[in-house]
Amino acid sequence: MKVPLTLLTVGSESLLKEELLQMMREEGATGFTVTQADGEGTQEFRTTEWEGPNVRIETILTAATADKILERLSADYFESFAVIAWLTEVSVLRGVKFES
Amino acid sequence: MKVPLTLLTVGSESLLKEELLQMMREEGATGFTVTQADGEGTQEFRTTEWEGPNVRIETILTAATADKILERLSADYFESFAVIAWLTEVSVLRGVKFES
Amino acid sequence: MKVPLTLLTVGSESLLKEELLQMMREEGATGFTVTQADGEGTQEFRTTEWEGPNVRIETILTAATADKILERLSADYFESFAVIAWLTEVSVLRGVKFES
Repeated sequence: MKVPLTLLTVGSESLLKEELLQMMREEGATGFTVTQADGEGTQEFRTTEWEGPNVRIETILTAATADKILERLSADYFESFAVIAWLTEVSVLRGVKFES
Repeated sequence: MKVPLTLLTVGSESLLKEELLQMMREEGATGFTVTQADGEGTQEFRTTEWEGPNVRIETILTAATADKILERLSADYFESFAVIAWLTEVSVLRGVKFES
Repeated sequence: MKVPLTLLTVGSESLLKEELLQMMREEGATGFTVTQADGEGTQEFRTTEWEGPNVRIETILTAATADKILERLSADYFESFAVIAWLTEVSVLRGVKFES
C-alpha cells in the first residue's frame, strides 16, 4: 500500500552540508541521500558562490514538514548562499518510517 | 508527444547494487542511472547498516512494473537492509524504450 | 508561496556534457546540478555507447522551456547517443530565478 509523501531536494555548496542536515533533523527529517554534485549557476548572479564541490541532499517528508524546511531555507540561505531546493510529490510504501 | 511513466529511485548500500539491478531486470527494467551516494539514516534504527559507500539507482518503468519492484524491495530488503525506495510520476517522450 | 515548475533530468555520456549545457542555456536554462553517474543500459541496443563515465544533469524550467529542450534532445541526440531525459513536476518557492 502506497502513501503520498514529499521529496525535498536541496543543492548547496559542500560547506553547508552538516549545517543543513542539522536544521532538517531539527524539523523532523530522519534519513538522507547525499550525493556529490557540481552546480553550474547563472552567469548573472551565482557564479562565484557556486564554484567548488557541491552537495545534493534528498529527504522524504510529510508535505507540512517539507514546507517548513523550504521556508527556513528561503529565510536563512537563499539570499546569501548558492542554495536551491525543490519539492516533488512521491509515493512510498506504507510502514516505512521517514520522520521522527 | 509525452507519455506518463514512473521513475523508481532506490537508495541502498553498494554491496546490494548488482543484486538489485538483477532483480529489477527480471521484472522488466532495462536502463539505469547509477550514482554514488552517502546515506545518513536515522539515529534510531539505521545507523550501522547505513555506513560506507552507498548507491542510488534510478529506472523508468510502467506504473505496474514499478509497483511490482517496490513490493519485492519491501518483501525482501526493507526489513534487513538499509534500502529506501520511492516512486515519482514523470513524463518521457514517446518512442523511447524503457522496458523489455 | 510555492509555484509549479518542471524539473528536467538528463542522463548522458560525459563527453556530451558541455554541449548539452550550452544547448539548454540557449533555450533559457540558467542553473544546473551536475552529478557523476554510471548508466547501465539495455543489453539490446545501448550497451556500447553507455560505457565509461556518465553525467546526470538537472535543471528547473517552465513547462514550455522544458518541452522545447526535450524536443531538441529527441531530435538531435536520442537516435545517435545514449541520452535519456524525463520531466517531473516540482514546486519551488516564488522569487527564485530559474530562467534567463
